[in-house]
Amino acid sequence: MRKICIVGGVAAGASCAARLRRLDEFTEIIVFEKSGFISYANCGLPYYVGKEIADFGNLILHTPESLYKRFRIDVRTNSEVLSVDTGQKKIRVKGPEGTYEETYDVLVLAPGCFARKMYGDFPVLRNVEDVQRIDMLAEDVDSAVVIGGGFVGIELAENLAERGKKVTVLEYADHILTNLDEDLVAYLEEELRRNGIDLRTSVRIRDAKQEEKVTITFEDGSSMETDLLVSSAGVLPATAFLEGSGVTLDQRGYILVDGHMRTNVPDVYAAGDAVLVNHLVTGKKTAVPLAGPANKEGRIAADNIAGLNSTFKGALGTSIIKVFDLAGGSTGLNSAQLKREGIEFGVICIHPSSHAGYYPGSSPLHIKLFYETASGEILGAQAVGKEGVDKFIDVIATAMNYGAKADELADLDLAYAPPFGSAKSPANYLGFIAGNVRNGLEELVTVEEALNSDEKHVLLDVRTNGEYSRGSFPNSVHIPVDELRDRLAELQPYKNKILDVYCAVGIRGHIASRILRAYGYQTRNVTGAYTTYQAYRK
Amino acid sequence: MRKICIVGGVAAGASCAARLRRLDEFTEIIVFEKSGFISYANCGLPYYVGKEIADFGNLILHTPESLYKRFRIDVRTNSEVLSVDTGQKKIRVKGPEGTYEETYDVLVLAPGCFARKMYGDFPVLRNVEDVQRIDMLAEDVDSAVVIGGGFVGIELAENLAERGKKVTVLEYADHILTNLDEDLVAYLEEELRRNGIDLRTSVRIRDAKQEEKVTITFEDGSSMETDLLVSSAGVLPATAFLEGSGVTLDQRGYILVDGHMRTNVPDVYAAGDAVLVNHLVTGKKTAVPLAGPANKEGRIAADNIAGLNSTFKGALGTSIIKVFDLAGGSTGLNSAQLKREGIEFGVICIHPSSHAGYYPGSSPLHIKLFYETASGEILGAQAVGKEGVDKFIDVIATAMNYGAKADELADLDLAYAPPFGSAKSPANYLGFIAGNVRNGLEELVTVEEALNSDEKHVLLDVRTNGEYSRGSFPNSVHIPVDELRDRLAELQPYKNKILDVYCAVGIRGHIASRILRAYGYQTRNVTGAYTTYQAYRK
Repeated sequence: MRKICIVGGVAAGASCAARLRRLDEFTEIIVFEKSGFISYANCGLPYYVGKEIADFGNLILHTPESLYKRFRIDVRTNSEVLSVDTGQKKIRVKGPEGTYEETYDVLVLAPGCFARKMYGDFPVLRNVEDVQRIDMLAEDVDSAVVIGGGFVGIELAENLAERGKKVTVLEYADHILTNLDEDLVAYLEEELRRNGIDLRTSVRIRDAKQEEKVTITFEDGSSMETDLLVSSAGVLPATAFLEGSGVTLDQRGYILVDGHMRTNVPDVYAAGDAVLVNHLVTGKKTAVPLAGPANKEGRIAADNIAGLNSTFKGALGTSIIKVFDLAGGSTGLNSAQLKREGIEFGVICIHPSSHAGYYPGSSPLHIKLFYETASGEILGAQAVGKEGVDKFIDVIATAMNYGAKADELADLDLAYAPPFGSAKSPANYLGFIAGNVRNGLEELVTVEEALNSDEKHVLLDVRTNGEYSRGSFPNSVHIPVDELRDRLAELQPYKNKILDVYCAVGIRGHIASRILRAYGYQTRNVTGAYTTYQAYRK
Repeated sequence: MRKICIVGGVAAGASCAARLRRLDEFTEIIVFEKSGFISYANCGLPYYVGKEIADFGNLILHTPESLYKRFRIDVRTNSEVLSVDTGQKKIRVKGPEGTYEETYDVLVLAPGCFARKMYGDFPVLRNVEDVQRIDMLAEDVDSAVVIGGGFVGIELAENLAERGKKVTVLEYADHILTNLDEDLVAYLEEELRRNGIDLRTSVRIRDAKQEEKVTITFEDGSSMETDLLVSSAGVLPATAFLEGSGVTLDQRGYILVDGHMRTNVPDVYAAGDAVLVNHLVTGKKTAVPLAGPANKEGRIAADNIAGLNSTFKGALGTSIIKVFDLAGGSTGLNSAQLKREGIEFGVICIHPSSHAGYYPGSSPLHIKLFYETASGEILGAQAVGKEGVDKFIDVIATAMNYGAKADELADLDLAYAPPFGSAKSPANYLGFIAGNVRNGLEELVTVEEALNSDEKHVLLDVRTNGEYSRGSFPNSVHIPVDELRDRLAELQPYKNKILDVYCAVGIRGHIASRILRAYGYQTRNVTGAYTTYQAYRK
């Protein structure tokens, strides 16, 4: 009987084990899990801290007993794989009763990542034991500091705040959640502060010390005290045990696999957070430490072990986070990544209603779409808002899976009724705008570009008098769109300039731009317009 | 100066007019609208009856004055186009001050549909005047009857109920909302009844008479009284004025157009509810009286008039309706349509959580996916639930726009965090199942087929003892999935039969089926399982 050993029993490992059994009733399957729990809801852990998830049992999807009953899987918890000998096809395991060797015919590596520990032995959030520890420590404290403004850090901060703690978030970068552009993450940062979280960015920590309280010292010599410090400063692959195994890792320790989740060593597969997968936009190998891809990779490894020809085609890194009443989501690449990749791209910013404005309860969505200038192909999208962020992101991610061009979004036939959306959905709108750009009906300019233009450009505000009086771009000429045709003479001095037209969100700017072009003016429409301008100023 | 006349000023007509102006500043644009209002929020009208939308002004997106100011469009309300002379290129118009002729260079037909009046002059809901009438009539009544269980009828019924009326819905067919299959619409029918609406289906009305009250008499001789009858018994194209114009209509009066929204007559375009468009699944001409396509068609007509080469590629008929706390959505074809089209199709039913079950507030989604047996291409999908219906439908509609095959849904990289979804989204799950079918790992059977199987088939319930004791398919053998391996001997008598395995939703059925196949049994997994069975019994 073939014996398959799986290192790691959470998302990728557990998915792989269960799928393997469904494909092969008679193989021996052993799962080695370092922690005391398997198949737990990793992504739910922060919400246990906030008591959103009150029942601990709800986070545990399977026990070793239930996995044995249903799948005849031999699950060994508290069992750390110390080393792998791919020549002899055996692994060394430290279990509850000592260290032993286990042979394998096929090995699956799904060890996941560990949370980087910085400044000392402060709690991190990786597994069930961690969350139990944080939950216990949080019981008797008033204040808490979270170091790191990534997904887990922000979810933890929110949940500690929901539990009544005075929470500070310390982030090294200029902004939290670096998957989002600055003008979109601004709404989430505002939401954190609105909910009482002391969010500090561009922070340089020198040191942190636990005495009765925790003292954090900063590079500038200042310091702060807190009752509880939780570190959430990124993850690294938990692959040290692979040293000398012959399995190829990259410099950071990520496991290299092909589309069938095979490593370079025969009969050794890998899946989950510790592997690098193909990025669907860049075509490069990338780490995507998210539950969706991890589960799929585990499943695909099982398929190939069982003789099915399945491939993991790649990831877009699609993600979403709840930040109190808002959500922020993204798929594909963001501005910074696109610049790093050297890809020539266009960007479209819109601020539509989450559903028909006349139906109660609608709220603004803030959306960015990136597309390749030459091909028109969509490269990424992001959105922030109260409602509809997940829907929008999923639509774009689905379109991207088929290599959609931005203007094709106009064709999508999406579900509409007033409580759920608009007759012209955000995706459709983006498609209309992309089509206008492609057809040469419109040239877009970003807020940053418009603000940094040379003297050949003039900013033209086409909003109402009331809107203009409450604030505008610096140095802009103002003529409301509905008065434009009658006041063209006022623009005569700018006949040889380029008018960078803006309104509140971009629609009236487009209309004004079209009028002006008919009268021989050169125009660009400021995408996202004054609303995006304000976001940069949050 | 070119003169463009547009018949109809709501979704398609208004979109066409505004787009035309943005494309051509100097053409003359006249819009003739039969009612007193233009560019109003058609889809919002039922919610005005329920006072969900309290401010009448919110429904009116533009007035003739605002459209003139912004777009220099000559809007003529209360102006009915009586006839079209395409030879002389002129139309006859009955306006507020009498009848006159107007010439055109280009004519756009966007007359929409009218609501069929049955049994007499009872109110219907088509335009703003209609909703004002119903709103007024509803003021002083206790009871109301809505004839017709389509989108508008059901939205009206809900809104009349929200306003405190005792509402009865009379539907001729066996079920309301015929875009949905019987087992999905069952949840919406239950929701209507749960909210106090007296829903009667398969109703045969003989007659309705207005005296002090309205008396409705049925074919079986029985009758009922009500204070207010609103008829919502379908729509027909408002194209009688095209008689003798030479514009080709189908038998029912729908206008035939090509992908550029051109009719058979040069310089005559058409858009909106009164035209037939290409159905993306069948490739046949079909009426899609929905706001999304109407707006797009108007825009595309304008593009082509202005010399841009835009095409309306076709519609999927994607739609959604709110029914109290539930939503029901669909895209593409349903079972009945697929049978009518003679397409060989497979169906997958699932009942996933709207988001991670351990995170508060999740609710069940009920989902069906149809795919072509031979190619695997997705033909349609539908969903009912409290949360996530619009998202799911939009993902499938987007995938269908790219000719997605069902098993490709497994590849979609969608946004996941516990408040928004599951690591394996419903679309992913459908893809996994479709892949299993394609790979021959699983054969699915519908509940109807399983119930009507011959004596070669045996029903096997693999749920727990508790679940089984609360009800099961008739005549089923029962062995819980976790006991299956130990109790195989009990199945020995069925070794030469086909075991139709079922659980609550289909997951344990799949696991059991895989175990049984390993031991040489022939199996099918009942898709949707006991949950779908119960839906048919609602």
